[in-house]
Amino acid sequence: MRVYNFSPGPSALPLEVLERAAKEMTDTNGTGQSVMEMSHRSKDYKPIFERTEALLRELMGIPSNYKVLFLQGGASLQFSMIPLNLAAGEQGSAKKKAVYIDTGVWAKKASDEAAKYAEVSIPASSKDKAYAYIPAAPKADSDAAYYHITLNNTIVGTKWASIPDTGAVPLISDISSCILSEPLDVSKFGLLYAGAQKNLGPAGTTVVIIREDLIGHAPAWTPALLRYDIHAAEASMYNTPPCYGIYIIGLVLEWLKNLGGVSVIAQKNREKANLFYSYLESSKHFLSPVEKVSRSLMNIPFVPRETDPEKRKDIETRFVKEAGAAGLVNLAGHRLVGGMRASIYNAMPIEGVKALIAFAEKFEGSL
Amino acid sequence: MRVYNFSPGPSALPLEVLERAAKEMTDTNGTGQSVMEMSHRSKDYKPIFERTEALLRELMGIPSNYKVLFLQGGASLQFSMIPLNLAAGEQGSAKKKAVYIDTGVWAKKASDEAAKYAEVSIPASSKDKAYAYIPAAPKADSDAAYYHITLNNTIVGTKWASIPDTGAVPLISDISSCILSEPLDVSKFGLLYAGAQKNLGPAGTTVVIIREDLIGHAPAWTPALLRYDIHAAEASMYNTPPCYGIYIIGLVLEWLKNLGGVSVIAQKNREKANLFYSYLESSKHFLSPVEKVSRSLMNIPFVPRETDPEKRKDIETRFVKEAGAAGLVNLAGHRLVGGMRASIYNAMPIEGVKALIAFAEKFEGSL
Repeated sequence: MRVYNFSPGPSALPLEVLERAAKEMTDTNGTGQSVMEMSHRSKDYKPIFERTEALLRELMGIPSNYKVLFLQGGASLQFSMIPLNLAAGEQGSAKKKAVYIDTGVWAKKASDEAAKYAEVSIPASSKDKAYAYIPAAPKADSDAAYYHITLNNTIVGTKWASIPDTGAVPLISDISSCILSEPLDVSKFGLLYAGAQKNLGPAGTTVVIIREDLIGHAPAWTPALLRYDIHAAEASMYNTPPCYGIYIIGLVLEWLKNLGGVSVIAQKNREKANLFYSYLESSKHFLSPVEKVSRSLMNIPFVPRETDPEKRKDIETRFVKEAGAAGLVNLAGHRLVGGMRASIYNAMPIEGVKALIAFAEKFEGSL
Repeated sequence: MRVYNFSPGPSALPLEVLERAAKEMTDTNGTGQSVMEMSHRSKDYKPIFERTEALLRELMGIPSNYKVLFLQGGASLQFSMIPLNLAAGEQGSAKKKAVYIDTGVWAKKASDEAAKYAEVSIPASSKDKAYAYIPAAPKADSDAAYYHITLNNTIVGTKWASIPDTGAVPLISDISSCILSEPLDVSKFGLLYAGAQKNLGPAGTTVVIIREDLIGHAPAWTPALLRYDIHAAEASMYNTPPCYGIYIIGLVLEWLKNLGGVSVIAQKNREKANLFYSYLESSKHFLSPVEKVSRSLMNIPFVPRETDPEKRKDIETRFVKEAGAAGLVNLAGHRLVGGMRASIYNAMPIEGVKALIAFAEKFEGSL
């Protein structure tokens, strides 16, 4: 029996995508091969790859002066690639400035890694309130190589309510946990990146959307696989790409297109999130720790209103365990922050959110 | 209808592995989830990951003082990681020496990349004869950080007949296209690496087997994801690993274990290769361009005996096309060398080789 999977990533995929992948596993498109067996340069694989890129371009409205790259290494490898390609100079030359806004663990990891290759400044942070809000975005230094934000913060459940205007300084964002969840004006960004394992497909593929003028600035000592220019010149086939992951992403994008695209899923996502936030607002025992204006549509952390640490911990443990037994799995908060968290990505049906609320209400009766 | 897939990688997988993956696609081990949907840190995924590592250790006889890492980026990222971790010094300090033996395109790519971070020497090459043999291995400089070979050369179809003795200098090898094809004494190596997409599973996972004393020597400026120490300390979970690929590798390893393990598959591989080399020896129209003692068990290039370039090209084109139509696919040689090539990895049944020979004999009748 299928469960409702609230995992923050890897996370639930649409059932019909999985069923189609299963059906095509030993013979895809009449080729007599699994996609896993196809040479990445074969005529059998080419249309699969091209369809995935075309669907992503169509659904996100990616302008023609942006390249779409399908890479490996997750968002974490982008934490290195971005400063290496955009701010590191040749050996002996000065590092360029890079601006990072600190909105949580992943934003901090990105800036820590960037500090190896760039002169990093962090003009705003929400650490003072355990990252429970998105800070105002300071103006960018005009000589900064780029300005980095984390559009949706998976662990603390915050989201930038509007895109900061950084003028001529390229805006870069990690959109791993919100890609395709609602419309996004790609043209406001110089570079967007996302690990696939939330709204796109299985772990192991990273999507990078990069404006062409930002390609070609890596110093000579950059590892070949970490250079955007090499990947762009070879259309993501400098070496063997994660072919099967790209195929699954294509199936997910097709599913999304058939649903009506990003504006339709955004409406569904708002409904799902509103339902759960409303429940939390009215709950006697649980609450959202996040400031209203900064709340994520995708990741909703919640904690007991109980303040006694021991009782609180007991409620959390019981909730996660009993929910799991009821087929509502992976509701524990991130190991660094505790509490509970419901990640309700595109593939989570509203029935899953309703089932979670019904469970939580019943659970409250036991408190 | 399934085809016989002679692709050099990604390549054929055992049909029963694909059938099991299809069967478990929407619900694996009674979890109600696809492996693609499982959080990498969940109790559902943990046994899958651990079983894969345990099976690899068992089948390859990996000693306990070696770490097994499941990474991303293919063998190509290892081309950077090896010199970065083992030969690059801190900024300003001298690069260490690294020895590379040039046995073809991939060996050359590895040494080209290493030259960014190490003082590379290439004391032997088989370029003089289009890489159609494995050169004698010169003694290692005692002050070299490591000595790198490519055990099996996918493009030209050569294989080291014996493992060079490099004394105290750690021997490193790319074993992408021969891992698990026959017994290998891991203890003779400091580090072994393999992209999964030949004998292990789908593209997107790289296996690294590294002796513990070689971990922990990366300079501070190394990108985090390119440091062996970080991956080893976090047991390949510093960031989200390619979970589904690791699961498929586990299924392939289970299949191999059920067959009887590496010594049994090696016997089958020798039978398959002998059959095809014998055919080529006796063929009036085709031949193996590789020196007998250096012939690969996995990749068998073959070319027309015809010497007229135009007629030759015509034979090659027709052969690949007509074989494809007969369900024997991906027989073109690498785009850099031309000709034909039959890659007959572990998952290729002997029936596939017999079918190829039968086709080739019939084809010869048309010449």
